Amino acid sequence: MNSAAPAPASAPAPRIDGNTQVIVHLGWPTHSFKSPLIYNPYFAAHGINMAVVPLACTADQLGGLLPSLLRLRNVRGALITMPLKVAVLELLDASSTAVKVAGACNAVRCDPQGRLVGEQFDGEGFVRGLRRQGFRTEGARALVVGSGGVGCAIAASLAGAGVAELHLSDADPLCAQRLSTRLAAHHPGLQTSIGPPDPAGLDLVVNATPLGMRADDPLPFSVDQLSPSTWVGEVVLQPPVTPLLAAAKARGCRTQAGVDMLFEQIPAYLEFFDLPGTTPEELRRLAQL
Amino acid sequence: MNSAAPAPASAPAPRIDGNTQVIVHLGWPTHSFKSPLIYNPYFAAHGINMAVVPLACTADQLGGLLPSLLRLRNVRGALITMPLKVAVLELLDASSTAVKVAGACNAVRCDPQGRLVGEQFDGEGFVRGLRRQGFRTEGARALVVGSGGVGCAIAASLAGAGVAELHLSDADPLCAQRLSTRLAAHHPGLQTSIGPPDPAGLDLVVNATPLGMRADDPLPFSVDQLSPSTWVGEVVLQPPVTPLLAAAKARGCRTQAGVDMLFEQIPAYLEFFDLPGTTPEELRRLAQL
Repeated sequence: MNSAAPAPASAPAPRIDGNTQVIVHLGWPTHSFKSPLIYNPYFAAHGINMAVVPLACTADQLGGLLPSLLRLRNVRGALITMPLKVAVLELLDASSTAVKVAGACNAVRCDPQGRLVGEQFDGEGFVRGLRRQGFRTEGARALVVGSGGVGCAIAASLAGAGVAELHLSDADPLCAQRLSTRLAAHHPGLQTSIGPPDPAGLDLVVNATPLGMRADDPLPFSVDQLSPSTWVGEVVLQPPVTPLLAAAKARGCRTQAGVDMLFEQIPAYLEFFDLPGTTPEELRRLAQL
Repeated sequence: MNSAAPAPASAPAPRIDGNTQVIVHLGWPTHSFKSPLIYNPYFAAHGINMAVVPLACTADQLGGLLPSLLRLRNVRGALITMPLKVAVLELLDASSTAVKVAGACNAVRCDPQGRLVGEQFDGEGFVRGLRRQGFRTEGARALVVGSGGVGCAIAASLAGAGVAELHLSDADPLCAQRLSTRLAAHHPGLQTSIGPPDPAGLDLVVNATPLGMRADDPLPFSVDQLSPSTWVGEVVLQPPVTPLLAAAKARGCRTQAGVDMLFEQIPAYLEFFDLPGTTPEELRRLAQL
């Protein structure tokens, strides 16, 4: 095995010693993991003796590893990413409604009774960011385009935040149908529909597909019917301003970019792991991305 | 990156990212772990993207954790300390003679066939240090006082290094007897004896007891019969010059301190984990102890 050389450090890196606590980040491949570059500079800047450490774990390895790992006294919890977000569900003793609706989990900790507790903050970050900009989720009419992992998570959090209508659209209608079924089970008052992505007359439209990552991608939905009063959310991280966001801005819509959602969810993770809070702005300033 | 950021106060710390490989250090309690403070500055100085990370693991947790952990793709291996050095033996698929004689293991890695391979370098560090000072182990007559973990490890390595006689002494003769039995099984040509600690006429005498850590400790053996030609080794780390070492130096003996043994063993671990070599001197200079 050959290890790639580390990138030069600018902001402080945490010093690991015998008192260091650990948050493991499980997934495979690990190369694109951003969490050590976001959390660890924050820990160092705040004098918190903790480190996020990547562990390359595949789905077949997870069950034999996670319960033992989370019961170690200096392991505060685990971040769970691809390809483990669904596989981890069967290891949990308890999980939030957001996990149940999303059908996926991306954070686990061991509670004082030794139970593994799962949470899901992809969608929470999305909703927090919108609210901080002034969007009122209660009673809103929303469309989520894409019912994959992140689309399910956003739909789950929008439902939890009190939207009145949630319209779903996916190239595979069965994916949207499964999400709709889970939404109905946990949010009986919510009105849902499945169909082609039509943004007309809505308060919020979200792109939760990968469309926009590549220069020649089509828009995830037609912006012709997009009203200036409709908010537009995006999950694609690169480019920072996707063609969808550019088109929405040009029509006068308020928007939320993928990177906003990323940094908005970190304070939620910090709370889950019983760590001191901070702002998305500080995290973004410290991050070594 | 901010060029005005303050320089780190001490030696560089490794920056953890998605390409970082991990050596876990398992034991409990973890607070006194020195390994992150020795290895990590070395990794950072050499541009090796690797980190030693403490994991607080008790003996009842080890079996459920270690095999899964060592099979993760970015885990290079494990350092094993108290209270796990003996418990780990039953998890190993293969181990060195030093492990078998010492009855303890302090380093494990997963080989390309997926087998857990154990090694033991406490004693190796002791022997390397002596040899670098010019001590000739082949045919030597040695006394090891104390048949606990470190005494067994040193006896195992001295036997492996070709000493002719190995005299053992322990407050609990049964401990010395068990070590003697293991030595006989693996080193049939070696002459051993068990008895009170008498340094007269020997080439090497080793204190492998904790005596010397506290100011009011008695000497581990009487120095009256200590000849200037006898080398004296010490395992106690603090104080750096124990009363035994001071007495031995006063009689003209050559000596090896506990901290020498500590730094001499690190290059052996680096080799075991397929990492670039270095000298004990460089490790000592970089360490953040």
